[in-house]
Amino acid sequence: MCRWLAYYGSPILLDELLYKPEHSLIDQSRHARMGVETLNGDGVGVGWYPDLSGADGSPSTPALFRSTGPAWGDMNLQDLAAHVRSPLFFAHIRASTGTPVQQTNCHPFRHGRWLWMHNGAIASFHELKRDLLLAVEPALLPDILGSTDSELMFHLALGFGLEEDPPAAVARMICQVEETAAKHGVPDALQMTVATSDGDRMWVFRYSTARRSRTLFFSTDVETLGRLYPDDPVMSTLDPETRIVVSEPLGPREGAWNEVPESCFGVVQSGQDELLPLQPYLAAARR
Amino acid sequence: MCRWLAYYGSPILLDELLYKPEHSLIDQSRHARMGVETLNGDGVGVGWYPDLSGADGSPSTPALFRSTGPAWGDMNLQDLAAHVRSPLFFAHIRASTGTPVQQTNCHPFRHGRWLWMHNGAIASFHELKRDLLLAVEPALLPDILGSTDSELMFHLALGFGLEEDPPAAVARMICQVEETAAKHGVPDALQMTVATSDGDRMWVFRYSTARRSRTLFFSTDVETLGRLYPDDPVMSTLDPETRIVVSEPLGPREGAWNEVPESCFGVVQSGQDELLPLQPYLAAARR
Amino acid sequence: MCRWLAYYGSPILLDELLYKPEHSLIDQSRHARMGVETLNGDGVGVGWYPDLSGADGSPSTPALFRSTGPAWGDMNLQDLAAHVRSPLFFAHIRASTGTPVQQTNCHPFRHGRWLWMHNGAIASFHELKRDLLLAVEPALLPDILGSTDSELMFHLALGFGLEEDPPAAVARMICQVEETAAKHGVPDALQMTVATSDGDRMWVFRYSTARRSRTLFFSTDVETLGRLYPDDPVMSTLDPETRIVVSEPLGPREGAWNEVPESCFGVVQSGQDELLPLQPYLAAARR
Amino acid sequence: MCRWLAYYGSPILLDELLYKPEHSLIDQSRHARMGVETLNGDGVGVGWYPDLSGADGSPSTPALFRSTGPAWGDMNLQDLAAHVRSPLFFAHIRASTGTPVQQTNCHPFRHGRWLWMHNGAIASFHELKRDLLLAVEPALLPDILGSTDSELMFHLALGFGLEEDPPAAVARMICQVEETAAKHGVPDALQMTVATSDGDRMWVFRYSTARRSRTLFFSTDVETLGRLYPDDPVMSTLDPETRIVVSEPLGPREGAWNEVPESCFGVVQSGQDELLPLQPYLAAARR
Repeated sequence: MCRWLAYYGSPILLDELLYKPEHSLIDQSRHARMGVETLNGDGVGVGWYPDLSGADGSPSTPALFRSTGPAWGDMNLQDLAAHVRSPLFFAHIRASTGTPVQQTNCHPFRHGRWLWMHNGAIASFHELKRDLLLAVEPALLPDILGSTDSELMFHLALGFGLEEDPPAAVARMICQVEETAAKHGVPDALQMTVATSDGDRMWVFRYSTARRSRTLFFSTDVETLGRLYPDDPVMSTLDPETRIVVSEPLGPREGAWNEVPESCFGVVQSGQDELLPLQPYLAAARR
Repeated sequence: MCRWLAYYGSPILLDELLYKPEHSLIDQSRHARMGVETLNGDGVGVGWYPDLSGADGSPSTPALFRSTGPAWGDMNLQDLAAHVRSPLFFAHIRASTGTPVQQTNCHPFRHGRWLWMHNGAIASFHELKRDLLLAVEPALLPDILGSTDSELMFHLALGFGLEEDPPAAVARMICQVEETAAKHGVPDALQMTVATSDGDRMWVFRYSTARRSRTLFFSTDVETLGRLYPDDPVMSTLDPETRIVVSEPLGPREGAWNEVPESCFGVVQSGQDELLPLQPYLAAARR
Repeated sequence: MCRWLAYYGSPILLDELLYKPEHSLIDQSRHARMGVETLNGDGVGVGWYPDLSGADGSPSTPALFRSTGPAWGDMNLQDLAAHVRSPLFFAHIRASTGTPVQQTNCHPFRHGRWLWMHNGAIASFHELKRDLLLAVEPALLPDILGSTDSELMFHLALGFGLEEDPPAAVARMICQVEETAAKHGVPDALQMTVATSDGDRMWVFRYSTARRSRTLFFSTDVETLGRLYPDDPVMSTLDPETRIVVSEPLGPREGAWNEVPESCFGVVQSGQDELLPLQPYLAAARR
Repeated sequence: MCRWLAYYGSPILLDELLYKPEHSLIDQSRHARMGVETLNGDGVGVGWYPDLSGADGSPSTPALFRSTGPAWGDMNLQDLAAHVRSPLFFAHIRASTGTPVQQTNCHPFRHGRWLWMHNGAIASFHELKRDLLLAVEPALLPDILGSTDSELMFHLALGFGLEEDPPAAVARMICQVEETAAKHGVPDALQMTVATSDGDRMWVFRYSTARRSRTLFFSTDVETLGRLYPDDPVMSTLDPETRIVVSEPLGPREGAWNEVPESCFGVVQSGQDELLPLQPYLAAARR
């Protein structure tokens, strides 16, 4: 499967999280501990929103860098991470479940101001693919450039109103996948942790049809982090709003990382973050 | 647009046609003369059927080598061409018309024993894509791995019976594209030269809705070639059945290369080759 | 050969020069007008110094992005250029003169705070290579990661004191190449336009043994540019210190672009820029 | 480090050894068991000598295919292996010890009819590199295209007469490395298993300065293999001369795979193979 990381908070250099932690995302590309595979070597991607502090005229759309080689040896990624500062970024390392290793299959995916990344899979995707493509809003279909289930899920959600109401749209996407799977007699339709953002807020989802979802963790509040890592100069200067969400913790879990509960989603935003059950949205979507 | 070459005849090393001629396909990747662009640097591919003479137990399915870099600098292609001998091979250099430069968008495409390559484009493909995807035989749709019009045309034709009757299936594919374009008010729907093969025979098509099709040439009979190039050791030993079909000639045209007429197709096979009008097949397909 | 661009001045988005001008560097990758080849498709690179306005804690070393595919199709480069703002950057598109197409052969090259890029060639480089490697400061030799003459020239110059006195070090490098060539009986030893920088100043050189050097142009003062392009919002807001140096102009030459004279070099810096003859430095180096 | 495989015997399809065995070389790219790392994802290469049975006019020089992506996802390698038949081939999966991931750093390396591949490292290579480059036969130095210790070792050996007397040349190379390391105070200079061939014979070496060399195994005689794998159609038809040499066994070791003893080399050839101590050659080289 894959591993991902989403960051929201004080602008920091990407490599503070991609390279420097003990069990950084790049380390996870070789030695993931909580995934089905230890190895995530089938491509890497980062998407970042510009740091607008002190600059004017910058574009507000996110930037993408995606590469098909393994993350651990990517010299461009290393330089980029050491020079790009962002208040909101996504990073993803891929372990292909069968679809080709190509740039258009690397996460994050982008649509206008929106980013999307996914860990997991649609069961029997090859069999369900056509019906799911037909369920995509017709005007959006030609924008699908790769061949992954993840990008298709993104475009389903976009068509279901992701830009207006992310939890409702993601719930409708989940129901669409599960109904299509049911029609084909495919059990355990969906396995997913997903992150999406418009540059202002960030939504993270943990869900699977079988209620045995891939792991997902969010960071403790920054004050606690600061006490846990008193010697880390970055931790001590972060804004209290700062939040990190990851497939697996970047270091010792105790006190620093909390699990997103099964079938829940979080909203990371200015002001109080939220952690909510998906169930009401799924119930509404099924109606 | 693109340039391609199809070879049928005595087993020869690929580089006899890819590298050695004065205006070889690799030379055309930098300096095409008859295309819309002089440059075809967005990927390269070769597909070859094994040379079964003297070997047993070899697979009969064609092999593919496809690479996203420009053909002129591909060291793997150069070595492969200098070492692989084949009695039937396709080679293609790509100039993207907008779809991503990735391996799954490189020609030739393969389905079982069948190869397919294309030069040209479907007009307003982005707009027509969804309707055309829906017209693909449902069981075949998930096999589409890239995002080109060319691969979609191949899968339309496969669903229309390419493996049984290539000219009829290609004619139905053409009609499908033209009808879909008409429905959307898109003029000049299709521009194509196409080659396809099952390893036994080879079909080449030249067609465009506007009847101003891209160039396509076939080689004169081998005896004439031998007289034209008396010093070429390869030309003098080729089987009389040998035929080369190309987007543009590999050298001086005079006496060596004949144009495939507008809206026609050729069948290259053991015994007499054929050159026939597409019109009757199109008329049948429209019924 | 190659084409390059060096920018010094008000922080701007890279794509203002890489993509937007009529005859931008990316356009030159397909359609160069003044080079030996029209095609520069063997890799691309950008090196940029961080924009320190409004940010603190940023690294002061330059960042590199180098890719082996053609510049015109590089989606990562396009996104990077649309999001990275820099007051001093280099960009280079490569046409290999025989050395492999690989990331370590792409320009710019970096050593600490220094960047270097080159258009041209050392004559009979294969023959002279060993003697030139021996002339590199021993401690620097293992830092050479690729196989180009350009990177070797950079390391020769570094060993000759590039970081203390760029014109003197470049002159010594030139003499070293010319003396080595003379020893081997190789005429017309060197052909070069070179740019180098430490992030504060920028030096550009135009030289060839035969005094028929590749073209090199610098932009007119910004006020004149502003009058020439009254509708360009970027041109009108640039700092008067701003200077662009290019292998070939990015648009109509008249009034906007001045040729660097044969065997001269320029210093682009805060305050008055300088344009000086290389001759005195060469004379000193030969002593 | 790396893993490699060398095959000599009846012409077989490459995928019989690269993909089909339980613990094939491609499987080892993800899950090596006896290496320092389990992961060999920094490039892959195969070199093969043509199968001349039944064909004439084929080139006698070996072909190379080398790619920088991980072996497990390389679609070109998979197709090549399923279609290329060879009586003598090398395959190598790379785990970089610091040098860049690029095609010219992938094994095998080639010089005329000769192939070379290596697992291991020269200690403190960065420090010793210059002196070792100086020890390369001057005319050969410019042929070094990459930056690995392995390619440098090959060129040292070539200069020391590899093409005339491989064991003597390899012994001189070893002494050169060890003497250079001693001069610099570097302990445990060399760690290597090496395979080299001219297309007629194949030499394999196992050596390390500290006498704790990487593993190396050769296959039992073909009759025993046939009894061990009675159901394998390929094993039962192999010529008795057939021999496989591998960094780690392709399946259960018992009865099928024998370790090359420390500081020994083997000669695989028509007629009786040989397994000999390196010591006498090293003693002679040191004189």
